[in-house]
Amino acid sequence: MKLVLDAMGSDHAPMNEVGGGVKYVKEFDDYDLLVVGDQTQIEAELAKYDYPADRIEVQHASEVITMVEKPAEAIRRKRDSSIVVSLNAVREGRGAAFVSAGNTGAVVGAALIYLKRIKAVRRPGLVAIFPTIKGASVVLDVGAFTSATSVNLYQYAVMGQIYADCLFGKEGSTVGLMSVGEEEEKGHEEIFAARQMITSTPLNYVGHMEGGDILRGKADCFVTDGFTGNALLKFAESVPKMVFQALREELTRNFRVKVGAWFAKPAFEVFRKAWDYAEYGGAPLLGVNGSVLIGHGKSSPKAIRSALLAASRMVSFGVVEKTEQNIESFEQYLNG
Amino acid sequence: MKLVLDAMGSDHAPMNEVGGGVKYVKEFDDYDLLVVGDQTQIEAELAKYDYPADRIEVQHASEVITMVEKPAEAIRRKRDSSIVVSLNAVREGRGAAFVSAGNTGAVVGAALIYLKRIKAVRRPGLVAIFPTIKGASVVLDVGAFTSATSVNLYQYAVMGQIYADCLFGKEGSTVGLMSVGEEEEKGHEEIFAARQMITSTPLNYVGHMEGGDILRGKADCFVTDGFTGNALLKFAESVPKMVFQALREELTRNFRVKVGAWFAKPAFEVFRKAWDYAEYGGAPLLGVNGSVLIGHGKSSPKAIRSALLAASRMVSFGVVEKTEQNIESFEQYLNG
Repeated sequence: MKLVLDAMGSDHAPMNEVGGGVKYVKEFDDYDLLVVGDQTQIEAELAKYDYPADRIEVQHASEVITMVEKPAEAIRRKRDSSIVVSLNAVREGRGAAFVSAGNTGAVVGAALIYLKRIKAVRRPGLVAIFPTIKGASVVLDVGAFTSATSVNLYQYAVMGQIYADCLFGKEGSTVGLMSVGEEEEKGHEEIFAARQMITSTPLNYVGHMEGGDILRGKADCFVTDGFTGNALLKFAESVPKMVFQALREELTRNFRVKVGAWFAKPAFEVFRKAWDYAEYGGAPLLGVNGSVLIGHGKSSPKAIRSALLAASRMVSFGVVEKTEQNIESFEQYLNG
Repeated sequence: MKLVLDAMGSDHAPMNEVGGGVKYVKEFDDYDLLVVGDQTQIEAELAKYDYPADRIEVQHASEVITMVEKPAEAIRRKRDSSIVVSLNAVREGRGAAFVSAGNTGAVVGAALIYLKRIKAVRRPGLVAIFPTIKGASVVLDVGAFTSATSVNLYQYAVMGQIYADCLFGKEGSTVGLMSVGEEEEKGHEEIFAARQMITSTPLNYVGHMEGGDILRGKADCFVTDGFTGNALLKFAESVPKMVFQALREELTRNFRVKVGAWFAKPAFEVFRKAWDYAEYGGAPLLGVNGSVLIGHGKSSPKAIRSALLAASRMVSFGVVEKTEQNIESFEQYLNG
């Protein structure tokens, strides 16, 4: 089976995509790659490497959806874009999963059209992986949509737990529901109704969560609406820069700190790395009929390689199949 | 004029409240204090200090609303609680502002009942002050309510700008509207309608903001719904602990880091202080007929002193009067 890689998405496409793809095939045996995009450019990049050529197939796509394009319009207009061509390959069974570092909105929108939602899933959700003092946790939705009903939140819990199980190699990862306080009476109607549904099922629910519980790793999976999740994700991503800037400013004033900063550098690196994309590679889109991972536009070859690895694990773990199965089998608890 | 101080709110009440009150009267001349709560306990604490006795009046209140009580019920039942007695003092004109480190929900609820909303204000909003690389910014609502309509968001913008002007000593502080992307088409209907209202008025609007723009200080005032604002605030408050824990763990592994941590300590302190409550003292509740500041349950005497100072500035600046005036005078732009 093949993983389908959009070669045209990142800020340094197709250089970083091809570099990451080559890294992946050299390191892992499980899946081959179908690399989609401008054939000439891709082949020119591939020519720089020594790699098992039979494991990377190239498929030409004449168009590229850029980061600044309006997703809905771009998908409609650019039928021969690398995103659309890639998703068609997955739909036709020529690929097991899709990785792109391109326009998030376009990937989400095109995945909805070309792969469609898993049966009974109302809305897909985009997952982010947050570092915690215990390791990491998943948070969804972080922006596939800008609001969520109770049913959406409940389904995010089902999908998110499966992805957490896949990522952390567990069974029955814990699920928390973001609210404005631990107390059951705090929150709003959609939260209460979602909790009612979640607690009716076998999901490993551990309670209402506050913003501060994420970094404490109080749950393996935090469920929230895409508006709140997106704000939290982007806030979190801005933290390391803020910390370093605060330190740097102090440096210019204080010799003791200057010396200290050099000595403490390895610790800062640990902290910076905790938020580092390349470790995880991308944000999985859950709830569509196919394993889809969306990388950052700034993805390095290392990040692309990690995204391919994460996508391959989604396939091996059966994230899509398990999601379909749980959404369906949990119905009995909801209608009981 | 007097500032009214709830002596019974904090985890170390009335010790920290009285300590903070004494600090305040010794340092500032503008306002005297009316300290409300258990008279015997308050007087026992006051007896420990040497202070200008004519500047602190004590009013007895026989009941206390605790942190774990349900706000609505507690307010109804405990008419002689320090919170209710204090707010009545403000309502009757015996006090210019109210500071409490007690149950946030109870203070918000009781302020709505006893002070009432400023004319034409639909909902009050709770403000948090976030550190930024430029200094600080205000964010509202951070949890007075768990959702917001476009009118609520618009009114938060009016109220928040005035408070930012008060806090930062500016005129025409910049206002940003939290969304899921800088682009105008990203967000949802309430956001679009709020933006339409905000941009019709003389408010100094600087655009859609993402979660990452807060720490960058891209606006003086960030407007969002109480659910998202609360999640962001609690997430932000949890960051320093996460950073220190990550460093501490690295310490046990690495000698160079161990040495560095000692040297870099002053810089960490700067960072920790940026999130430190005592600097600002509390969260103003905007939109009610009176200056109300809610401190953290963990408030130290220094934090109480800072909260009293912040409350006195709200009064001197005329936050309530300016809010009423702008809400009213901006009507013409909305109906134009």
